[in-house]
Amino acid sequence: MNAEFDDEPISPHGDGGLVRVRARVAYDGSGFAGWATQPDKDTIAGRIEAALGVVLGLPGPVVTVCAGRTDAGVHARDQWLHADVPWPLWAEHEQAAKRRLNGLLPASIRVLEITEAPPGFDARFSAMSRSYTYRVADRGEVDPLQRTHVLGWSRPLDLGPMNAAAAPFLGEHDFAAFCRARPGASSVRRLLEFQWHRDSTGLAVMTVTADAFCHSMVRSLVGVMLPVGDGRRAVDWPAEVLAGRARIPAVVVAPAFPLVLERVSYAPDLAAYAARARRFRGTGDGTRM
Amino acid sequence: MNAEFDDEPISPHGDGGLVRVRARVAYDGSGFAGWATQPDKDTIAGRIEAALGVVLGLPGPVVTVCAGRTDAGVHARDQWLHADVPWPLWAEHEQAAKRRLNGLLPASIRVLEITEAPPGFDARFSAMSRSYTYRVADRGEVDPLQRTHVLGWSRPLDLGPMNAAAAPFLGEHDFAAFCRARPGASSVRRLLEFQWHRDSTGLAVMTVTADAFCHSMVRSLVGVMLPVGDGRRAVDWPAEVLAGRARIPAVVVAPAFPLVLERVSYAPDLAAYAARARRFRGTGDGTRM
Repeated sequence: MNAEFDDEPISPHGDGGLVRVRARVAYDGSGFAGWATQPDKDTIAGRIEAALGVVLGLPGPVVTVCAGRTDAGVHARDQWLHADVPWPLWAEHEQAAKRRLNGLLPASIRVLEITEAPPGFDARFSAMSRSYTYRVADRGEVDPLQRTHVLGWSRPLDLGPMNAAAAPFLGEHDFAAFCRARPGASSVRRLLEFQWHRDSTGLAVMTVTADAFCHSMVRSLVGVMLPVGDGRRAVDWPAEVLAGRARIPAVVVAPAFPLVLERVSYAPDLAAYAARARRFRGTGDGTRM
Repeated sequence: MNAEFDDEPISPHGDGGLVRVRARVAYDGSGFAGWATQPDKDTIAGRIEAALGVVLGLPGPVVTVCAGRTDAGVHARDQWLHADVPWPLWAEHEQAAKRRLNGLLPASIRVLEITEAPPGFDARFSAMSRSYTYRVADRGEVDPLQRTHVLGWSRPLDLGPMNAAAAPFLGEHDFAAFCRARPGASSVRRLLEFQWHRDSTGLAVMTVTADAFCHSMVRSLVGVMLPVGDGRRAVDWPAEVLAGRARIPAVVVAPAFPLVLERVSYAPDLAAYAARARRFRGTGDGTRM
């Protein structure tokens, strides 16, 4: 993965004549094999990296690093990325970059902004938290206009018990029961927000914010909560699963398509935060952010 | 059109052993050649009529009548239709009808409910009003997850002048300036609601409600308002166009894909209202409802 090895920050107008640019992007992940560039697969990063290369007049794609690599089918309204590019080319194409990128990209991927990054910015390591939502239609059919990102659920969900079950998850815990095991990687994460509410159209919406998430963690959190909401499991069951620190088959990994990366929050001290995050990662932690 | 000739109400369990059923449906119109059944075209009514025939075990499609025939690309969250079907077949299949219809139909078309219609119900002639919305993203890129039904507009819209311009449209007027001319047909309509607001995500949303709309009327109303909102036309221009009672090239018919039929309101006195509406239609009025 790009993000695994691109650990050296590059100062704006720094060594090698490179400048770090950052972009905020949104996408409908429906047609893509996820975020990360893969050979012979249509991915969101693959599209953006190719378009960046074209816009800057480079002979090939531009390597990018993002805040949170989303899986196949997952969407984003607020994904951030950075790339280090030759600064004379950036200076030449900066003004038209956003318009030209959006002209090259499909309507399913939009560049919302692209500018020179502030000093010390690292799309991955400067990010303090990621927020995801997950939408469920449990009171009738899924609105056809929302069907790319809303799960249909045939049993009514009672959000009261779900929120009661979610409360003990807040704070720092070992989320091994909700993570795909990865040798040598920690599954300790800090949950900052984890709650369900009804939106104005009656959908049940889960919002979860953490410093970072391990692989399939958000979808496993959905999977442990839905049976509480529809009455098949007790309110204290999710906390028991968490305490067990081991994946169990009873927790289903919910489908990817209703999952949306909604917001990434960056540290006010970008460089210092990134340096700490990088040191932490250097000790063998394989946080998937 | 079915709706033009199907003017005779059929009582439940009435003559010919037919029962009138009504259904509420929602659809993403993106892939379809509009509502109305047409030979060799994929239409929403065509799909529903075929599925109804299959579910009831009939040899072919079931003719339906709807509240408002939507154009190609237009969506609905609350469209109503009725059909007169043999009551022994309805009695046999009633319980499973909704589930089986949704099993046969694509996810882009959902049956929200289907029941025996109350006495006097006519999906078209008992409908007192139709409400449409039209969504515009004027503050940046269109959210990729909403791109099937949100228009991108590159100039910021000021809703104050748009609402000031919309106010004189309320009530009964001759909307000839906003209707595709049709010989012998009246273009007099009664507007009950016509306003713009910002939704929680910052989109500019037009809501328009009328007793009925003539062809392309809603999209022409959008077309006359956008230049007021972005400052290219004066606030009193739309009222001048209305008073002119003739289509002018300066009023662009806005694209169809951001248009959604949101709600149909039915008369409390279904049969009496339908009888009046039918008489009105009998005098040569070609209202497109």
